[in-house]
Amino acid sequence: MVRCPPLALRSPPPLSRGSLVAVVAPASGFDRDELFRGLAWLSTRYRLQVDARILAREGYLAGADASRADVLSRAMLDDDVEGIVCARGGYGAMRILEALPWERFAARPKALVGFSDVTALHVVANAHGVATVHGPNVTGLGRSITAAERASLIATLEGATPAPWTGLEVLAPGDARGPLVGGNLALVEAMAAAGRLVVPRGAIVALEDVTERPYRIDRMLTALLLGGHLARASAVVFGGFTQCEPGPDGVTVEAVLRERTRGLGIPVVAGAPFGHGAPNHAFVLGGEAVLRGGAVYWGAP
Amino acid sequence: MVRCPPLALRSPPPLSRGSLVAVVAPASGFDRDELFRGLAWLSTRYRLQVDARILAREGYLAGADASRADVLSRAMLDDDVEGIVCARGGYGAMRILEALPWERFAARPKALVGFSDVTALHVVANAHGVATVHGPNVTGLGRSITAAERASLIATLEGATPAPWTGLEVLAPGDARGPLVGGNLALVEAMAAAGRLVVPRGAIVALEDVTERPYRIDRMLTALLLGGHLARASAVVFGGFTQCEPGPDGVTVEAVLRERTRGLGIPVVAGAPFGHGAPNHAFVLGGEAVLRGGAVYWGAP
Repeated sequence: MVRCPPLALRSPPPLSRGSLVAVVAPASGFDRDELFRGLAWLSTRYRLQVDARILAREGYLAGADASRADVLSRAMLDDDVEGIVCARGGYGAMRILEALPWERFAARPKALVGFSDVTALHVVANAHGVATVHGPNVTGLGRSITAAERASLIATLEGATPAPWTGLEVLAPGDARGPLVGGNLALVEAMAAAGRLVVPRGAIVALEDVTERPYRIDRMLTALLLGGHLARASAVVFGGFTQCEPGPDGVTVEAVLRERTRGLGIPVVAGAPFGHGAPNHAFVLGGEAVLRGGAVYWGAP
Repeated sequence: MVRCPPLALRSPPPLSRGSLVAVVAPASGFDRDELFRGLAWLSTRYRLQVDARILAREGYLAGADASRADVLSRAMLDDDVEGIVCARGGYGAMRILEALPWERFAARPKALVGFSDVTALHVVANAHGVATVHGPNVTGLGRSITAAERASLIATLEGATPAPWTGLEVLAPGDARGPLVGGNLALVEAMAAAGRLVVPRGAIVALEDVTERPYRIDRMLTALLLGGHLARASAVVFGGFTQCEPGPDGVTVEAVLRERTRGLGIPVVAGAPFGHGAPNHAFVLGGEAVLRGGAVYWGAP
């Protein structure tokens, strides 16, 4: 049964070879060599705009809030910039959310790429009706990345249809169609606490996380359930839950994902190729997805 | 300046020597020997009602949700029971919140004692207008506990005025008066995400946490700030932030507590004697507190 077929969010214009892409650092500082390697790869396809201020460090942040917000704001509003890729997640995007020009960005949207802590930006952009790109940050591109991951990022950025995700583990069977939203579970929970989380009717909710004990994943999912944040979803797609090993009690994160979503009565799949463990394939947050029999397709299949 | 003097929440009847106290296990399983030692101490002052089902284990939970909820529900509704003390926190109270008889409990409230994960119960009870007791769980009573901690628990349960907290570190100076609410920061954030957090106008918000990196404390506080959950508070009182050591970036949790609350423009103190590090003095959540010059007093001083 396909429930609630809603419209997808508005997609920014696709990039093409040679497009100008701005690199921003909304969250934590990072390894410069990883950044440079990621930039090197990105530069083989796009022209890059890199503000030197992204190399700043202030504690666990890539510079002061005002500086990170200014670099990102300028990229959001620069008509020559066609895409924005985040240097790294970590933590810090939530600190600058209110300083960003969301209304003007939504009026002239452009591709915004990242994941993990960048989920905070995705959630607000999606809430403004703008689709974004869940995909590797620049430093991730500078570590090991496969040809398939590169292809999925380029396809996603340039408006082609990426390869479907097949062979997913079916935790609760069924079909669904809707805008894929979500991201990092801890950030989704934090954005719910911040009163900023919007899950569109019929959404397929994508969630991943890293280095959280299973009981903590339980707590986050339980918070979302109690808050009714999953009540309008048509399906849940779990990505990687990396280094989420059991504690002494032996409960696995897979058991938690299955048990906590059982009462929703909607299709649930796990093991989708996104998150902190390889592979981390890109996809459009807010783009239309179809879940059918352990596979996710993009747009009308 | 004293702002917004609101009424305190309704306090349950005080206990007295020989009162019947029920021991419940709403969250995680625990060390039985610690429980027995805690029960031994409690039994020197109160009669105890212990349902054998609290000794169950199911993964990281003290038995199935239905069992934990049933034991707690019966204690909440048993007219002979004058107080309820939780065996341990850990995680799990949120899973049973909706199965508990809050309306009937609020109509005939009794003292509900615990902390850490038990914050979920406190938040809902407080939202129902009922004051609760932030204090050691039974297993905590079974570990090292000082005469002063014991005295504060008995005083709090029996309606006497505990000793004031003095010599606190003043992060932002000022005076305030209001109901003290809050508890464990991670649970407060989760309850905000769950749409259950109610911070009364003029509240003094008490927060503590354990084993969280400073950047995570930042994330939780930032979520509360963005959500406006601290906008009506008259002050913030930080307790222990135990094992919240800096990461490689060197940022201390003290720096985070100071920086994240600076914009509130209300008095903030740190180092109050509650939380996961010793000492863990009891106090009434929802009871009226007065903050003045690095000291917290209970009721009208």
